[in-house]
Amino acid sequence: MFELDDQDILPLSLEHNFWTWSAQGKVNPIPVKRAKGVYFWDVNDKRYLDFNSMVMCVNIGHGEERVIEAMVEQARELPFAGPGMATKPRALLGQALSEIVPAGLTRYLYTLGGADANENAIKLARGKTGKFKILTRYRSYHGATYGAIAATGDPRRAPWEPAVMPGVVHFLDPYRYRSTFHRHNPDISEEEFTQDYLNHLEEIILYERPETIAAIMMESVTGTNGIIIPPQGYMQGVRALCDRYGIVMIADEVMSGFGRTGKWFAVNHWDVTPDIMTMAKGLTSGYAPLGAVAMKPEIADAYRERTYEGGLTYNGHPISLAAAIATIRVMQEDKLVEKAAATGEAMADMLAELKERHPSVGEVRSIGLFGILELVRDRKTKEPMAPFNGGSPEMTAFRKYMLDHGVFLYTHWHTALIIPPLPITTEQLMEGFSVLDQALEITDQAAR
Amino acid sequence: MFELDDQDILPLSLEHNFWTWSAQGKVNPIPVKRAKGVYFWDVNDKRYLDFNSMVMCVNIGHGEERVIEAMVEQARELPFAGPGMATKPRALLGQALSEIVPAGLTRYLYTLGGADANENAIKLARGKTGKFKILTRYRSYHGATYGAIAATGDPRRAPWEPAVMPGVVHFLDPYRYRSTFHRHNPDISEEEFTQDYLNHLEEIILYERPETIAAIMMESVTGTNGIIIPPQGYMQGVRALCDRYGIVMIADEVMSGFGRTGKWFAVNHWDVTPDIMTMAKGLTSGYAPLGAVAMKPEIADAYRERTYEGGLTYNGHPISLAAAIATIRVMQEDKLVEKAAATGEAMADMLAELKERHPSVGEVRSIGLFGILELVRDRKTKEPMAPFNGGSPEMTAFRKYMLDHGVFLYTHWHTALIIPPLPITTEQLMEGFSVLDQALEITDQAAR
Ligand SMILES: Cc1ncc(COP(=O)(O)O)c(C=O)c1O
Ligand SMILES: Cc1ncc(COP(=O)(O)O)c(C=O)c1O
Repeated sequence: MFELDDQDILPLSLEHNFWTWSAQGKVNPIPVKRAKGVYFWDVNDKRYLDFNSMVMCVNIGHGEERVIEAMVEQARELPFAGPGMATKPRALLGQALSEIVPAGLTRYLYTLGGADANENAIKLARGKTGKFKILTRYRSYHGATYGAIAATGDPRRAPWEPAVMPGVVHFLDPYRYRSTFHRHNPDISEEEFTQDYLNHLEEIILYERPETIAAIMMESVTGTNGIIIPPQGYMQGVRALCDRYGIVMIADEVMSGFGRTGKWFAVNHWDVTPDIMTMAKGLTSGYAPLGAVAMKPEIADAYRERTYEGGLTYNGHPISLAAAIATIRVMQEDKLVEKAAATGEAMADMLAELKERHPSVGEVRSIGLFGILELVRDRKTKEPMAPFNGGSPEMTAFRKYMLDHGVFLYTHWHTALIIPPLPITTEQLMEGFSVLDQALEITDQAAR
Repeated sequence: MFELDDQDILPLSLEHNFWTWSAQGKVNPIPVKRAKGVYFWDVNDKRYLDFNSMVMCVNIGHGEERVIEAMVEQARELPFAGPGMATKPRALLGQALSEIVPAGLTRYLYTLGGADANENAIKLARGKTGKFKILTRYRSYHGATYGAIAATGDPRRAPWEPAVMPGVVHFLDPYRYRSTFHRHNPDISEEEFTQDYLNHLEEIILYERPETIAAIMMESVTGTNGIIIPPQGYMQGVRALCDRYGIVMIADEVMSGFGRTGKWFAVNHWDVTPDIMTMAKGLTSGYAPLGAVAMKPEIADAYRERTYEGGLTYNGHPISLAAAIATIRVMQEDKLVEKAAATGEAMADMLAELKERHPSVGEVRSIGLFGILELVRDRKTKEPMAPFNGGSPEMTAFRKYMLDHGVFLYTHWHTALIIPPLPITTEQLMEGFSVLDQALEITDQAAR
């Protein structure tokens, strides 16, 4: 229907597009032509193994016919209805979600993505409690709209301050590898370590005063800022603090949800049910823009008589809802959650092996198919391969090597993230890991 | 693909859905089954004439095959690529937009809808100028994310204050029918009236100090808050003030764009080119979630070396971009802009006739197919049929009559908006206006 010479895609995109998260004069976009399974191809037929699920979202893999056909059918049947209308996909997605989210989260507000899901979660908690403050962690990313970026703890927030939503207080993450206060006792037990960080959270709650705190929001497993997996007991401890102090617990499962960690949702690992859980990315595997806020009935009931004042034109878009229903079915039919758990074990071994072989690998962490390498100049001092919120020639060369050799992955400061589509096979993982193995020789040269 | 008995759509939607802009215990959603042209049908085959283009967005009408098939083709070819990738629809939409937007707006940032388009416009202006404040008008709606709702002037902002983005100052709209300061001289010439409101804006600029003001953002024609059409000279005057004081002019054309006013964009009526123009709704006619920020090269160039720190996972979704390209082509092929201008003339006559016949119609206004009736209890005092930010039994009965008789329209406080799909024929308009004519007898009974 739309004709354009392949070779015009890049120059014409460059002519008119304004690129997000970029300096416009320095962009170098890949002109993507097609995608299937764990691969995508550019206009010159160069193939990339997708180790980032595009934007950490194509959990079921590329070009999945069952989702595409569901969207096609919905587009032909009823491509649009307003957010206040009842539609078949709205009815069915509610039912489908109720079967996979932690029991008790029975009501769903549909959004366009993760940022507005988190903003709605914040509004719901503020409205429910009549309180104002939101506690989030420093190593968090919750989205880029003005409320979500305020909730974000990482450096992407600062450029927009102080013109962001007020009322957010940030606390520390249980990030063992770089825990400031544990350098004197690195061998502390997991239990004691967890207790320290729960004590810290409680300390902040008390300093800030519980009666002012509407919600604690956290990524169940931290994504871009380090695949930080909560130690045993941590999530349960946060749940208990929320209960003790009348605080709404919000789990941001935008990146960690939908099988990414080897369970449907990361909170399932610790049997914790948040009061509100936000989703996006894996919810539709990227096939259509959609986010969702799942909540306990007592949150929804706070707005039974009172109007919930929030919403966007495209909340609950029928085609997006259809994509989500089909995505969930694919995950169920193909047992992708179980598969991710199994392949995740293999990936953990591969990561461990890289750490053994390469002095520049300071630590590896993973849960399911959610993995990271921390690259360092010195294992002892843990000096990172690039400074906090910065880059380095070694990291640039490392990423370039990966791309040149057909592996697309996300690097962030001194880390490399491994977040492949869930259907990836062990062989395909090995394919990417062998390129990683070569690329790490670049960073090894900078390691003492 | 998805099976569900029609009669289950409503109860199952009610069971799990959390409704935006609603008290959950009071919702009464229409279970929509199909839609074509200017009509949609519920599950009981009741037909509605769509006088609100669903959410003021289905400008090209429902069930448009050319858009659906473009989306289908894109879904089958490449359903997703990340926001940093170059793709065929990204290249082609840039080209298509460059042919229809005011000359000079050559760079486009794609968003998910109107709210995040406006948030990005604000960020771009702040980053470009190094200034902080944003001036917007009281009778504006710019979206519901935490930044967009702060920019919004209407009462939807207040419930979330003070926890919204700081830095917005609101000024008065040139709303002649209810202009506070002109009750003593209602017959003032349009030129003098315009000058008063430009003087007012300049006064606010000076009070706030120009060196602190990044942007003035306004709906080119105010939408939900009253179809307020700027008087002759107003937009040109705002443009001149922005130039004089080094302020970025942002036109929010989310609702007024894409033929709604009988021109491609409302600013075309006054030959004004803003520095930044935001779009959504009509851009895809609702077939897929998409917004866009069009900007002059000098705005984009401020981020040539410096990183623009903002973006969402689904910016530039290929299927949404394809929907927009196809929507623009449909508008061009079917000459919908010209058609809307012509049908708009007929609608203006119909509105004038209603005003003549019904004492409860205080004023009617329209531009293209963007119309409103202000319902009053008394034409002389202009006492509205419902209080500011409130409802009344008469307005409820009025809307119920319209719905019962198969006309779907949006009522807001004491007003009724007429915003039909652009392909509507004069006969179809008359069909809806004859129901309006009957419904107004309800409000007439409350009019002195
Ligand atoms: C944990 C987390 N929350 C929220 C978001 C924001 O989602 P979106 O980009 O869809 O707005 C992201 C995106 O990367 C994320 O990783
Ligand atoms: C003028 C205007 N701007 C912005 C918006 C927000 O758009 P969205 O709902 O797509 O975020 C709207 C929505 O009604 C609007 O009318």
